[in-house]
Amino acid sequence: MPTPPKIVGYAAVAGKKEGDGPMGKCFDRIEPDAYFGKETWEQAESTMQKETLELALQKSGLQAGDIGCICAGDLLNQCIGSTFGLRSFGIPMLGVYGACSTMAEGLLIASVLAESGAASYTAAVTSSHFSTAEKQFRYPLSYGGQRPPTAQWTCTASGAVLLEQQDGIKGGVCVTGACVGKIVDLGVTDANHMGAAMAPAAADTIVRYLQATGTQPSTYDAIVTGDLGVVGSTLLCDLVMKQGYDISKVHHDCGVMMFDAKTQDTHAGGSGCGCSASLLCGHFLPLLQQGELHQILFTATGALLSTTASQQGESIPGIAHLVELTRLHV
Amino acid sequence: MPTPPKIVGYAAVAGKKEGDGPMGKCFDRIEPDAYFGKETWEQAESTMQKETLELALQKSGLQAGDIGCICAGDLLNQCIGSTFGLRSFGIPMLGVYGACSTMAEGLLIASVLAESGAASYTAAVTSSHFSTAEKQFRYPLSYGGQRPPTAQWTCTASGAVLLEQQDGIKGGVCVTGACVGKIVDLGVTDANHMGAAMAPAAADTIVRYLQATGTQPSTYDAIVTGDLGVVGSTLLCDLVMKQGYDISKVHHDCGVMMFDAKTQDTHAGGSGCGCSASLLCGHFLPLLQQGELHQILFTATGALLSTTASQQGESIPGIAHLVELTRLHV
Repeated sequence: MPTPPKIVGYAAVAGKKEGDGPMGKCFDRIEPDAYFGKETWEQAESTMQKETLELALQKSGLQAGDIGCICAGDLLNQCIGSTFGLRSFGIPMLGVYGACSTMAEGLLIASVLAESGAASYTAAVTSSHFSTAEKQFRYPLSYGGQRPPTAQWTCTASGAVLLEQQDGIKGGVCVTGACVGKIVDLGVTDANHMGAAMAPAAADTIVRYLQATGTQPSTYDAIVTGDLGVVGSTLLCDLVMKQGYDISKVHHDCGVMMFDAKTQDTHAGGSGCGCSASLLCGHFLPLLQQGELHQILFTATGALLSTTASQQGESIPGIAHLVELTRLHV
Repeated sequence: MPTPPKIVGYAAVAGKKEGDGPMGKCFDRIEPDAYFGKETWEQAESTMQKETLELALQKSGLQAGDIGCICAGDLLNQCIGSTFGLRSFGIPMLGVYGACSTMAEGLLIASVLAESGAASYTAAVTSSHFSTAEKQFRYPLSYGGQRPPTAQWTCTASGAVLLEQQDGIKGGVCVTGACVGKIVDLGVTDANHMGAAMAPAAADTIVRYLQATGTQPSTYDAIVTGDLGVVGSTLLCDLVMKQGYDISKVHHDCGVMMFDAKTQDTHAGGSGCGCSASLLCGHFLPLLQQGELHQILFTATGALLSTTASQQGESIPGIAHLVELTRLHV
């Protein structure tokens, strides 16, 4: 982008299990109550998303009225986590749906909107909640369904990013590139094996970006995916290697990072829109800001299934959107 | 927009009931089989969306590989109408969710992407299907639930638009302006009265656009909404009038236009993402192309409810996104 938008605010909120994990210290707030003080899990998720945006605004010194457009979405049917979470702000909103790739998709659209001059400030926010996702996609929690080793654990977490339009490069952490994902479907039908369903999409997007920019994996301090989990991450590195790129030294997956699988019983790792969003905002953006990282590719991955599609025997299409983040010097 | 993207292709496909209505002649294709030759209604909706995009590509002489990004969404949980409809094209996809406002939202994002130089061609597509919507949001069709007079009828229809990035204004029908909607919620809780839930959002967006551009309703040949229906349209004109603008002479609502309520038993009118999308592509874009219209505001409206939110007693937030379409002369 000729005048890349600058990231001027971010925040991450997570639930208790995420707070107890290896990344626990990176979140702005850990909420011990799964209901976030509300009566239903859906209200809890909306409240979490609302609080995350409020925190990002507070930390940046901006007001809701400064934000010209926010891109938001989540996993719930009709994206109600975002609708009811953002209803009170009065910010023009573009609803996005990319399953767990939502933060990269929202950040991509918000960046293009800021760069186009449509608004001085734009934003992206997303969330996921373990209990709303289990209820909607899997089994009632009280049923206690068994999870195979390839299953992932939907994180209770949220992340929000605020972007500023620049009229010249002034330095700071900026969105310097992006790549819109293609739907890739190699026929995986096991909803407990989503890392395998999404890895080919992540490989497609990462390889297309490396080819288009003429860069190598070593150009970047980190190539981050979210959320392939342990199994999907191995598949990704293999698939990318087959196309001539070794990303194994710089690859980090938010699903793998979020939990200690051995002690937290999370099998293949974390998932959910909030997993990569909260680690972007709680971990990677601060490291970029502090200069410990210079340039990363943030590639959030989504599995575009629904219960209806799965019940009709459909396979699980994957998608992965990529955003390049660079700490620019004045 | 400094170099407004040009609309270089469009197509509309509709079902039998829509084809039997007063707008029947405007569609590129009317499909008499509600299943579109498939086994489930969800597969039918995906097939319809696929066929609509194929028709738009055919009519414009473009190939799927020419399209750098497509913005797509629908009413189904996790937007599976779009995912499975577009899976085979290999076009980079941004999933959007705006309920029945999806065509305006998709067109807005696709326009900004084209204008930003991200791609030479972008696209927007959406769909709705009476039977998938009834099944998901209301009652099993075989139940034969009674519909109150304020209820609307979800259209089986789809529309697709293709946009070209211009490096100078070359004339033709272009996207010359846009306004992102805000969530507006005045507390309506009746899911059979969505026109009332959405009218305040449409009023907010239209008034903000008129104020921001310093234009009057008479500036435009048509201010199109979709889909407020008969009741919501009256409310809209009243709400806008209270803020000093009389749009009654130029206002047209796609939900009102789609059916003959007296003979087609559709009560307050049509609805669904495909309603305004198919009338945009089947009716308004051809009139702009032929020079019978010069400039219109296309304001698609969405009700951001889900069955879960309604069952928890939540009200119905509305949103309306606006796109200004102008026939420019060289």
